Amino acid sequence: MQPTQAVIGIDLGGTFTKIGIVDAFGNFLALERFPTLADQPFPVFLDELRAVFSEMKDQLSPDVELLLAGVGAPDTNCFTGIMENPPNFNWGEIVPLAQGLSEVLKVPVHVNNDANVAALGEIQFGGAKGMKHFSVITLGTGVGSGFVVDGKLHIGNDGMAGEIGHTIAIRHGRLCKCGLNGCLEQYASVTGIRKSVQFLLEAKDTPSVLRKYDFEDLTGKAINDAALASDPIALEAFEFTGEMLGYKLAEMVAYFNPEAIFLTGGLAKAGIFILEPTLKHLEANLLHIFHGRVKLLISELVDKEGAVLGAAALAWQKVL
Amino acid sequence: MQPTQAVIGIDLGGTFTKIGIVDAFGNFLALERFPTLADQPFPVFLDELRAVFSEMKDQLSPDVELLLAGVGAPDTNCFTGIMENPPNFNWGEIVPLAQGLSEVLKVPVHVNNDANVAALGEIQFGGAKGMKHFSVITLGTGVGSGFVVDGKLHIGNDGMAGEIGHTIAIRHGRLCKCGLNGCLEQYASVTGIRKSVQFLLEAKDTPSVLRKYDFEDLTGKAINDAALASDPIALEAFEFTGEMLGYKLAEMVAYFNPEAIFLTGGLAKAGIFILEPTLKHLEANLLHIFHGRVKLLISELVDKEGAVLGAAALAWQKVL
Repeated sequence: MQPTQAVIGIDLGGTFTKIGIVDAFGNFLALERFPTLADQPFPVFLDELRAVFSEMKDQLSPDVELLLAGVGAPDTNCFTGIMENPPNFNWGEIVPLAQGLSEVLKVPVHVNNDANVAALGEIQFGGAKGMKHFSVITLGTGVGSGFVVDGKLHIGNDGMAGEIGHTIAIRHGRLCKCGLNGCLEQYASVTGIRKSVQFLLEAKDTPSVLRKYDFEDLTGKAINDAALASDPIALEAFEFTGEMLGYKLAEMVAYFNPEAIFLTGGLAKAGIFILEPTLKHLEANLLHIFHGRVKLLISELVDKEGAVLGAAALAWQKVL
Repeated sequence: MQPTQAVIGIDLGGTFTKIGIVDAFGNFLALERFPTLADQPFPVFLDELRAVFSEMKDQLSPDVELLLAGVGAPDTNCFTGIMENPPNFNWGEIVPLAQGLSEVLKVPVHVNNDANVAALGEIQFGGAKGMKHFSVITLGTGVGSGFVVDGKLHIGNDGMAGEIGHTIAIRHGRLCKCGLNGCLEQYASVTGIRKSVQFLLEAKDTPSVLRKYDFEDLTGKAINDAALASDPIALEAFEFTGEMLGYKLAEMVAYFNPEAIFLTGGLAKAGIFILEPTLKHLEANLLHIFHGRVKLLISELVDKEGAVLGAAALAWQKVL
């Protein structure tokens, strides 16, 4: 019998890690998730991964052949396979990510920035098929960006290009984990909108269902649910988030002149609540020559484990 | 006798136009300049160019064979050869630049953004030889940028990528000719530093030799001369200009991760006065992963008619 070839795709996030076994058509043969425990040392994560992966393999059909693994993770250098000074992980300054994972998974491991693999996923399995110039913006715990330039992933001189999350939305603004002030990540991530809700609750007396939450419990989903119920604080927080994101995306268009921008990650699941204000402020801040020339879209993969599919696309790209 | 092959390079600026006849080694066989008269209609410019070019050709050795022309101009679309809505030119919304020039010069004409051709000049005749990822920032009447990504000019989906001059340095800041507020161009161009001097003269009582100038007469050279004489207003204007430029270049590095950034154009001729504060604020605003990974340099071509050489490089690129 011909074996079924598949790859491992891993989305390593600041909160959860997802691991999928994915065929060449983007079908999941298996999918699991577990807490990343980013505040504990790196070996604790590897032990957890070993246990989860072992169980997945036990349940997999014996004819599945695992070729490679692709990993999307923040702050990784795709040339060296190393995570460098990850601000949201307590794993040290130099984390030998590809090497550590390869020892657990027993296949060669390719790593790249989480937003870069999202861009690869979008071109292989999503809405960017056939596009030469586009951007994917990941709005999760942080904000990342992946750029495809002339059909190829744009990685820069040291493999670290594409950090829109650490461009400045408000000078001298909120302190970011990276050490800079006012980074877009502090406004347009799930963490950012939670902070904006907190600020608005403190600054205004407007009634809001969000007043009943502690900051720890104030999830993106809670804010989204409040917006669905027309809660004024939730709606204003989305408006402000879209203002920051839209104005910075307009700058990004001035640099890259992409055909389309795809939003993905937790905050993109808010759909129209994030899309509408972002589009308004993108248009208002766009240099005139770019008007009508860029599409702002929610990723087709946002509800389909796009980050895992992107990591799998990175692996498939190395096979094909 | 073997003819000497050469190309025409034209640097079309908001104030002056320079036209050179350039061989494959970057030698000038002829070079002229004339006022662009950007406030008068486009045909007036073409008539002036016709007269200047005719005189140049009369004085050229008869064995010189002109192959092509390359033109660097702001707001041009390299796919169509059209200048689109140029804010610093009173030439209408759609200027058929390549077509108009081709009729005058009697050779095929390739146009591109002035900053893009500066990048081509830097790679062919300047300090970027062999580099795969670098940026050239032109600090002239306006601010432009050209990006080489993976060894190729980065032009984007519509041929209009690379507009750092119209990213925002100060939100709701100085009104730009493009219609946006606070564009980097309003702070880091020759025009920008003139405005900063004017602001400082008004805001402070500090004695300054620059007080004797009308705004019309306050040239970049006058500010540079004042800085050389340690004039406090001139030095503070350079410091502020470098602060704006450095912080925006740090953002640009987050997007592009280049090996080097080359500064060129009128303001770059100020050398250390612009380089030192720009470098300081670039370093202070750089995301930690990029520290020590980018060189900030004055273009080797800044005093060598680099804009004309860049335009010639664009033409040579099409020949070779």
